[in-house]
Amino acid sequence: MTRILGIDSSSIVATAAVLSEKKLFSEYIVNNKKTHSEKMMAIVDQVLKDSGLTINDIDAIAVAKGPGSFTGIRIGMACVQGMAHALNKPLIGVNTLDGLAYNLMGTKDLLCPVINAQRQEVYTSLYRWEDCKLKRLWDYKLIKADTLLEELLGINENIVVLGDGLPILEDSLKNRGNQAEENIISAHPVFSMPRASSIAAAALQEYIHGNIQDCFSIKPFYIRKSNAEEKWEEHHGAKSR
Amino acid sequence: MTRILGIDSSSIVATAAVLSEKKLFSEYIVNNKKTHSEKMMAIVDQVLKDSGLTINDIDAIAVAKGPGSFTGIRIGMACVQGMAHALNKPLIGVNTLDGLAYNLMGTKDLLCPVINAQRQEVYTSLYRWEDCKLKRLWDYKLIKADTLLEELLGINENIVVLGDGLPILEDSLKNRGNQAEENIISAHPVFSMPRASSIAAAALQEYIHGNIQDCFSIKPFYIRKSNAEEKWEEHHGAKSR
Repeated sequence: MTRILGIDSSSIVATAAVLSEKKLFSEYIVNNKKTHSEKMMAIVDQVLKDSGLTINDIDAIAVAKGPGSFTGIRIGMACVQGMAHALNKPLIGVNTLDGLAYNLMGTKDLLCPVINAQRQEVYTSLYRWEDCKLKRLWDYKLIKADTLLEELLGINENIVVLGDGLPILEDSLKNRGNQAEENIISAHPVFSMPRASSIAAAALQEYIHGNIQDCFSIKPFYIRKSNAEEKWEEHHGAKSR
Repeated sequence: MTRILGIDSSSIVATAAVLSEKKLFSEYIVNNKKTHSEKMMAIVDQVLKDSGLTINDIDAIAVAKGPGSFTGIRIGMACVQGMAHALNKPLIGVNTLDGLAYNLMGTKDLLCPVINAQRQEVYTSLYRWEDCKLKRLWDYKLIKADTLLEELLGINENIVVLGDGLPILEDSLKNRGNQAEENIISAHPVFSMPRASSIAAAALQEYIHGNIQDCFSIKPFYIRKSNAEEKWEEHHGAKSR
């Protein structure tokens, strides 16, 4: 049996969960306007206790690696890197968009997770559940909400949109002022925000296929540079990478 | 905005959540072999704190009313009745099977939640998600796992089975010894057990339609009599009801 501890602090939600192939041991989700950053270790501690386990019983630690809030992603990364370093545990970084698609496992419609990237833009991709497997149909991308909406409206199929970018897309829809956009469905709020069980479930698939990392090799997934980096480049020119 | 506190202690899982039409504020799920009965009030207290709310901010309290563990159901009922009585809050009893179907909102396949009723029997019903609405296709029933399996195999469509009765059904399938049962899919463990967010989401629909109760009118949903009642009737004859 493989036991995965999953955490996601990439948005306003702080969440942790422990699961195996056989069961979800425990899950904790806090979606409230508070600085959740300091609470992450307390939440991890709680789900382990609730699972009747210690961190030593965990086979791999999974984290939402982004896209999302820069600070949130860094906090999540630091938290799992610390644990992995101390105990020599494997790490698995799960794309936050993939994680959101796991919230609605087996859904008949296309899934379009959208993460608020500010400036009327969202991070997104498009997914379909086929035979209990998640298929990603688009590259991960950063896109204007209006442009994404045009793309989605051009697809002749129902699409469930979820994530903290949903209100931006709903605003774009309203601004169009017509009611014909019936192929776009807002996800139920229960499934719209990150769940650590989804991060852990996605990570379990990676673990089975040997796709693991360690505290040195794991990398966040940003798409866009941070404000600080963008400003630096404005003043000093782009760094070579 | 309507704020619902939901709890489910009808199985080995203890879970509580707070949600509104707009968001899931917090959720707590503990699925571990412990006497969770004493922990229910502590978990309720935790989700309220995590939501930045007090019980006074809650518009209605929802509870999984059964079927399930007699003791678990009674604990859940007593917990919400106590709160409702003290604060004069409306109560909403959600059938545990309906709650399980909400775990897999929008799933393309038929859903068959199964709750372990001991003696190789399960409580069950059959559901389909249609246009974001949950349709129940069967009456709630208590049935031998083997008999249910025959019924499901006779349906020419994929059926996702979930709940703590799943291992019993999987055993029945194995005992048949053939591999042709391809229309029956075991739910992913993440979605197989009760979630208070599902109870609260189902209750929100009831609340909108005015289907509320109070601490005196709410009733558990048992289907089968308890062992104690059955033994009493063996000795004394059936009570008139």
